[in-house]
Amino acid sequence: MPARLSPEARAAALAALPGWREVEGRDAIARSLRFADFVTAFGFMAQVALVAERMNHHPEWFNVYDRVDVTLSTHDAGGLTQLDVDLAQAIERIAGSLPPARASG
Amino acid sequence: MPARLSPEARAAALAALPGWREVEGRDAIARSLRFADFVTAFGFMAQVALVAERMNHHPEWFNVYDRVDVTLSTHDAGGLTQLDVDLAQAIERIAGSLPPARASG
Repeated sequence: MPARLSPEARAAALAALPGWREVEGRDAIARSLRFADFVTAFGFMAQVALVAERMNHHPEWFNVYDRVDVTLSTHDAGGLTQLDVDLAQAIERIAGSLPPARASG
Repeated sequence: MPARLSPEARAAALAALPGWREVEGRDAIARSLRFADFVTAFGFMAQVALVAERMNHHPEWFNVYDRVDVTLSTHDAGGLTQLDVDLAQAIERIAGSLPPARASG
């Protein structure tokens, strides 16, 4: 079981994850992503799902059409751990490899 | 553009979709589904995604581990249409073909 991040480790992790924010009232981080269309958004989710399953660490996420809202927290630890930081980094890599959203980005 | 369902058509559709409920404050229907694990839940989502893309009608959905909360509404029509009923029926067929959730199912 990974330990919850110290305040210092959390601050350092978030500084290295632009676009991610702390969730109010929960020890969790979140990011909303926008893609070109549903096919791209769900393709993103499929890639993240495979990584998450391999890590045995899964996101909470909401999708509507081209938008995916991701929340990460380690339920068993009751808060943010290195697993969440690792998954957030994987999500950044995957999202960065996909075509960007149009206009409102 | 499909028309919004009449109150009679909506009542008949919901009667044929046990497990689905009307969403408070929105002209939409929703169902929460529980599966055996994340692999099964995301497998369900992948099947629904393909059907949704073929229909060009997509769900709003939230997933955490073995749970998928689905909300259906036709944004362009401002409410529930036959497209939502068709997608809900497809979702029932897909969910019914998958291994059931354990215990709390």
